[in-house]
Amino acid sequence: MMRVYFDNAATTAMDDRVIEAMLPFMKQHYGNPSSVHSHGREVRSAIEKARKKVAELLQASPSEIFFTSGGTEADNTAIVCSIETHGITHAISSPIEHHAVLHTLEECAKKGKVQLHLLDVNESGDIDMQQLEDLLVKHPKALVSLMHANNEIGNINDMQAIGALARQHGAFFHSDTVQTMGHFVHDLKSLPVDSIVAGGHKFHGPKGSGFLYVRKDKKIHALIHGGAQERNMRGGTENVIGIVGIAKALELAYEDMAAHRTHIESIKQYFIDLLKANIPDVSFNGRSAEMGKSLYTVLNVSLPPSEENAGMLLFNLDLHGISASGGSACSSGATVGSHVLRAIHADPLRDSVRFSFSRFNTKAEVDYTVGKLKELYGVEV
Amino acid sequence: MMRVYFDNAATTAMDDRVIEAMLPFMKQHYGNPSSVHSHGREVRSAIEKARKKVAELLQASPSEIFFTSGGTEADNTAIVCSIETHGITHAISSPIEHHAVLHTLEECAKKGKVQLHLLDVNESGDIDMQQLEDLLVKHPKALVSLMHANNEIGNINDMQAIGALARQHGAFFHSDTVQTMGHFVHDLKSLPVDSIVAGGHKFHGPKGSGFLYVRKDKKIHALIHGGAQERNMRGGTENVIGIVGIAKALELAYEDMAAHRTHIESIKQYFIDLLKANIPDVSFNGRSAEMGKSLYTVLNVSLPPSEENAGMLLFNLDLHGISASGGSACSSGATVGSHVLRAIHADPLRDSVRFSFSRFNTKAEVDYTVGKLKELYGVEV
Repeated sequence: MMRVYFDNAATTAMDDRVIEAMLPFMKQHYGNPSSVHSHGREVRSAIEKARKKVAELLQASPSEIFFTSGGTEADNTAIVCSIETHGITHAISSPIEHHAVLHTLEECAKKGKVQLHLLDVNESGDIDMQQLEDLLVKHPKALVSLMHANNEIGNINDMQAIGALARQHGAFFHSDTVQTMGHFVHDLKSLPVDSIVAGGHKFHGPKGSGFLYVRKDKKIHALIHGGAQERNMRGGTENVIGIVGIAKALELAYEDMAAHRTHIESIKQYFIDLLKANIPDVSFNGRSAEMGKSLYTVLNVSLPPSEENAGMLLFNLDLHGISASGGSACSSGATVGSHVLRAIHADPLRDSVRFSFSRFNTKAEVDYTVGKLKELYGVEV
Repeated sequence: MMRVYFDNAATTAMDDRVIEAMLPFMKQHYGNPSSVHSHGREVRSAIEKARKKVAELLQASPSEIFFTSGGTEADNTAIVCSIETHGITHAISSPIEHHAVLHTLEECAKKGKVQLHLLDVNESGDIDMQQLEDLLVKHPKALVSLMHANNEIGNINDMQAIGALARQHGAFFHSDTVQTMGHFVHDLKSLPVDSIVAGGHKFHGPKGSGFLYVRKDKKIHALIHGGAQERNMRGGTENVIGIVGIAKALELAYEDMAAHRTHIESIKQYFIDLLKANIPDVSFNGRSAEMGKSLYTVLNVSLPPSEENAGMLLFNLDLHGISASGGSACSSGATVGSHVLRAIHADPLRDSVRFSFSRFNTKAEVDYTVGKLKELYGVEV
């Protein structure tokens, strides 16, 4: 049985070169980076080198990069602390944001800190830009939290347009860039965004690593209090291997981005073509099958109603060694319905499965997977 | 030149067996533990095995253990969320707590969530237990946040006595156990405490790993919102290598605790004896030289006033390859004064240095260090 990993939007395999970069900080260089002695200084230097590298790749300043324990903590910090620091009273987001954003905003609303406005989303998963403008006119200086690209259906938001509107109305624009970091170029000199985030494990770095970018003139205070680490923005002894790892992973991602993109796009297009040719009545959720309008790493497939597979599709694929997902991994897969698919009114009678790709995938894996889907859906082989 | 690491209260070298336990989760087992497919399940199983191991060692239930990014995040969660969840309006702590506790409490007070009461501390670093009782009588159902042992002067608080008072008055008792975890036995069946914390790197585990224990009947809600990880107590893809690492480190710590304690105590006693015999007018801060009343891992030495070394002692030691610290690493060493030494009114004319030990230290390192101190303090060799 082939073992196929098509769940790269959930997490990716670490790159060997990332592991190699981390190992010296597991064994030899163990000092606390806040210590002033030699054991500490050698580790401090590695952290600041990592920060400089990340900043350089994103066209930001090192003083705008704060390392966190992951994308979720970074999203929480950006949202909770921008609201508190800048006295924000209205937040504008959408129902298809990741739970790291949505649940955090709901929590802020529940505590009475902000009034939360969720934009309408059409059946393709597009947010209503006119509504965004209307809300900003009514509530300037709001927090706008809209993701760069959706983790389930792949839809890419127009960061330039959202950012321009946010700036025009004095809003704070936070974007959850967890799915695009390491896969698309983020040029923070030209992107009109105030904060973005990353989780290292989405681009072949370590789990438990992440960072938050906050634009210089929009400084926010800390979520986690303690020592003076990260220039008072994040207490706690630094996860040195995580920091070294995420910086190395981002460096590698930028080095080979065009080649990886070409490779993964060819896998995705091949997958789309094969599905269309082999599974009658197959369709695709959101804009995930539209190249250029969606993450090249994500394909969300809607399969025809089938008694044999109803609610069992992921399980059946898993039995054949194929790892894919229903919604985001963070909502525990198949059993809990996807809030994103609900929001775009996906037909509940059709099973949906998200296949997500990395540079390690091959066309042979697509052949195998479509073959199994044909068997599962009773298509004559 | 010998290179001596006497800063183990800041961080410790990782144990090779911990690194070995982590490596398979860097390369082979990379699934997202929230994914329901085989790649995810094998990782989920490792996390739950780690949780069970930690719970078992501490005589707790696995459902009471929540993995975090470190001790600081765990302290923040316990404090902020116990206050919010249980509607607490008064907090009782002390001026010699770690900044992860003190700054978090100050932040809560600044936001008007609680009124903060700091207990008096005498010149030995003992907290005023009568004052604690008086405050609890006045403000029952308060949050009591008192550390198990102080990270700078080593003083051990009487957890049983504090816990008994807290229970009597319906208070929530949180204890920052970062310095004792892995070095002392914590039996949560008999310890009357509601929450404790750990940072893996303080006992030869990885930086960026930690956990929070919260007693079943004192449940609190999450600080970081997102996915349903850690049973909704901590959103964000789990730091799998950190979790596997901290559990392994705790397991090893418990296996060899008695032997390590004997070894380290002999180092510490030897250090005390040698200093007394060789440095005229040497003294010790807090109760750090009293075996049994202080962390066996910490010795806080107060040196006689000296023009040559004033403010330069750590620097001079570092030049000789000796890594030690002034205060906690988290307040960046020598240049910022220690809030703990200030609170116990340590003589500002005397330089203080914290030497802290691990099982990897030797008496030869003590010989070398005391020899250098003799040179620095102009004692005829």
